[in-house]
Amino acid sequence: MQLLCIFASEFISDCMIQNDTICAISTAQGGAIGVIRVSGPIAIEVVSRIFTPISGKPLKERRNFSLTFGKIFSNEEEIIDEVLVSLFRAPHSYTGEESVEISCHGSSYILQRVLQLLIGEGCRLAEPGEYTQRAFLNGKMDLSQAEAVADVIASSSAATHRLAMNQMRGGFSRELSILRDKLLHLTSLMELELDFSDHEELEFADRTELSQIAAEIERVIARLVNSFSVGNALKNGVPVAIIGETNAGKSTLLNVLLNEEKAIVSDIHGTTRDVIEDTINLRGVTFRFIDTAGIRQTTDVVESIGIERTFQKMSQADIVLWMIDSDSEVDWESLKGEILPYCEGKNLIVLFNKCDKISPERRAEMTHTFENVDAPKLFLSAKERMGLDELETLLIETAALPEISQNDVIVTNIRHYEALTHALDSIHRVQDGLVMQLSGDFVSQDLRECIHHLSDIVGEVSSDSVLQNIFKHFCIGK
Amino acid sequence: MQLLCIFASEFISDCMIQNDTICAISTAQGGAIGVIRVSGPIAIEVVSRIFTPISGKPLKERRNFSLTFGKIFSNEEEIIDEVLVSLFRAPHSYTGEESVEISCHGSSYILQRVLQLLIGEGCRLAEPGEYTQRAFLNGKMDLSQAEAVADVIASSSAATHRLAMNQMRGGFSRELSILRDKLLHLTSLMELELDFSDHEELEFADRTELSQIAAEIERVIARLVNSFSVGNALKNGVPVAIIGETNAGKSTLLNVLLNEEKAIVSDIHGTTRDVIEDTINLRGVTFRFIDTAGIRQTTDVVESIGIERTFQKMSQADIVLWMIDSDSEVDWESLKGEILPYCEGKNLIVLFNKCDKISPERRAEMTHTFENVDAPKLFLSAKERMGLDELETLLIETAALPEISQNDVIVTNIRHYEALTHALDSIHRVQDGLVMQLSGDFVSQDLRECIHHLSDIVGEVSSDSVLQNIFKHFCIGK
Repeated sequence: MQLLCIFASEFISDCMIQNDTICAISTAQGGAIGVIRVSGPIAIEVVSRIFTPISGKPLKERRNFSLTFGKIFSNEEEIIDEVLVSLFRAPHSYTGEESVEISCHGSSYILQRVLQLLIGEGCRLAEPGEYTQRAFLNGKMDLSQAEAVADVIASSSAATHRLAMNQMRGGFSRELSILRDKLLHLTSLMELELDFSDHEELEFADRTELSQIAAEIERVIARLVNSFSVGNALKNGVPVAIIGETNAGKSTLLNVLLNEEKAIVSDIHGTTRDVIEDTINLRGVTFRFIDTAGIRQTTDVVESIGIERTFQKMSQADIVLWMIDSDSEVDWESLKGEILPYCEGKNLIVLFNKCDKISPERRAEMTHTFENVDAPKLFLSAKERMGLDELETLLIETAALPEISQNDVIVTNIRHYEALTHALDSIHRVQDGLVMQLSGDFVSQDLRECIHHLSDIVGEVSSDSVLQNIFKHFCIGK
Repeated sequence: MQLLCIFASEFISDCMIQNDTICAISTAQGGAIGVIRVSGPIAIEVVSRIFTPISGKPLKERRNFSLTFGKIFSNEEEIIDEVLVSLFRAPHSYTGEESVEISCHGSSYILQRVLQLLIGEGCRLAEPGEYTQRAFLNGKMDLSQAEAVADVIASSSAATHRLAMNQMRGGFSRELSILRDKLLHLTSLMELELDFSDHEELEFADRTELSQIAAEIERVIARLVNSFSVGNALKNGVPVAIIGETNAGKSTLLNVLLNEEKAIVSDIHGTTRDVIEDTINLRGVTFRFIDTAGIRQTTDVVESIGIERTFQKMSQADIVLWMIDSDSEVDWESLKGEILPYCEGKNLIVLFNKCDKISPERRAEMTHTFENVDAPKLFLSAKERMGLDELETLLIETAALPEISQNDVIVTNIRHYEALTHALDSIHRVQDGLVMQLSGDFVSQDLRECIHHLSDIVGEVSSDSVLQNIFKHFCIGK
């Protein structure tokens, strides 16, 4: 009896050297309090050298999770600050290492001096995210949880906060772990069949059962992959393209929306100026407006390229706002023929702009012309700020973002999305293999690849665990 | 025997109602960590209601100075964040009250939500400086120490940090306390004399001894008053006025100095744009440049007013830079006659600008013209950046700021300066009274006023203690 050990290319966790002790200022400049974090084997030792408690035992002899008030002294015995020191002994700290947090007065001068002293005593400045990286490497959290920490800190709305908190608390990991158990079960069945391939009378699982399990797994992965569009919309805004002829009023609309909501937009902390210009928060929902060049029927090559680009950009959008100058004479039928094919699968909204300039007859005429276009239609005037409330309502209804609860597992991370897409491909190949009755070792290799892609998300080395699971459950008498 | 009890108008500490519990975000927006402080009678109770430890005893039963890891829940049982809670029981906290510090992820959304929950449970938002105010009212620090906390946080250089730390640690208070002991001793002697005024043969202290003590006190107060100019120069920059004819190159010089040092200047956190434009840090010393209008001999009334203002502004300066266009023909003798009287008591530096444009003969001629002006002189070209190093050296030498140690008591606070100035006036009146052999009760009233002004600085009610001291040391058998 032989155990086949064909593994997909392995994901080896990049075990960094973490023998050094790192320090960094963990708070932003300018508050009343500034916090410096120190983590690593000599963290407590190093802080003890520059810190003297006001009274009682030296820092090294203090209990875990204790707070000590005292003074930081410079090498010249000058008092740098009176501080509060929090003590965390390994492995009961955020990083899993010996850790100290020093809570100083929030003066940038003081914080810099304390950092200098720590570095003088043998610490080095931490890299961005290094505390969380160490927490991951020390097994305090998996990779997807570690990634969520940054999202929690950046969260600026109830929805993004819920998603990030859920992921940080391991909601996503739990979902993946359930999925993985199912995959391992399927793999075990497949590989056991291989093991006993010389005893053809032995049937551990019939192909129908395997297909059912594969279909179930495919459903879960597909749901996660699909949740990315919602997750992405929540995190980065619902993508909206405004298209239309030149001079239809696209920029005016964008400016009006931006101006009205400027205060709300600038509330979003950390957004870059570019993002601020194009992202608008309407009644709690974030929209990301995609700029497009004006469409004009032309034979000019250069301009055709510009229009081509507009259509390309439309493909990124969930919602397409088609802005029409109700007062202009255009060959609407021909334009419809050009634009509508690109709106397939998108949520199209037709906006008749400059409605303040037209007669009731013209309004009826435009309505009639667009009767055969299956989309919500709205008369408005961006310049006169007419119909904007209706547009907002329409946008929010069209975006139709679900109410997110803290238990929903929604993919917001592009890396996870890519890994899940690969996993979905693998599971599709598994399903095909089962249908085509391919040899078990081919199918099980696709299964292992699927597990490998999922494990990428939580940062685990996968193949060992596949092996262990086989031994644990199936290796009879071996 | 009668005890006279004439008191100066009393400074009654404004005992605010502090029965409520306050909360505030104590860190700046945008870091990895955000800290919320809660202080007041129900601080621990309130936090207990929204915070659940991961394991172990509830927060209320935890020991003083302990750290507890756990979760903040919303009213809808949604997890807002995983946080670290520091516990401080009265009176062993910064404010002297029951206090809690909540260390959250630094998301503005999370911090706002936690604040909302605390307010929902009965806290109110703290006013600026209210924690330190409570610390003062609860006797954790005196007023001058409380005032120094803000200076510590704002400190941006070694010198300002040293001054603020010394004051916060009570260095200034110690100096005042020594001074007060001396004053109380003197007062006691004076008032004892009054007490025994019907027994003229009794002489507790002769007037010569009283005069010596008064002179010693005067010396100490005068030193503190005089230290303010150094303290102010360290804190706000050495005031420098650049004067000169229009077009002598004043603005060019300022711009060149500003540009060269822009990086250093913008390091100073919290400085407003206005201050950045006029404050320059040269080799660790801060200079505050005072803008002046160009001087021109004129009969125009409006322009005369401008020149008058220039001379007014010169009075605020420690250093006057007289900028001269070496290449222009001016009635120098007449200008010297106009400017030099205003430079009395100032540190004048004469700058011959545009030195790149003049011949060696012209240089000799200018040197000769200003031979009788007693001031350092320097040939430079602001535009060509010639002689700037020499100017910097000259400015730093002229500023001649002493090297500050952490034990030096230097007045940096305008309120303290004013109180000390009043105290100095009082002690001068005491000295005059002793010389003129005024009645003891007049002299002792001036002494009490002096004590009162000094007590203003630390925020104590003074007259009671004067009284107590008399009883303690001198009231024989009463």
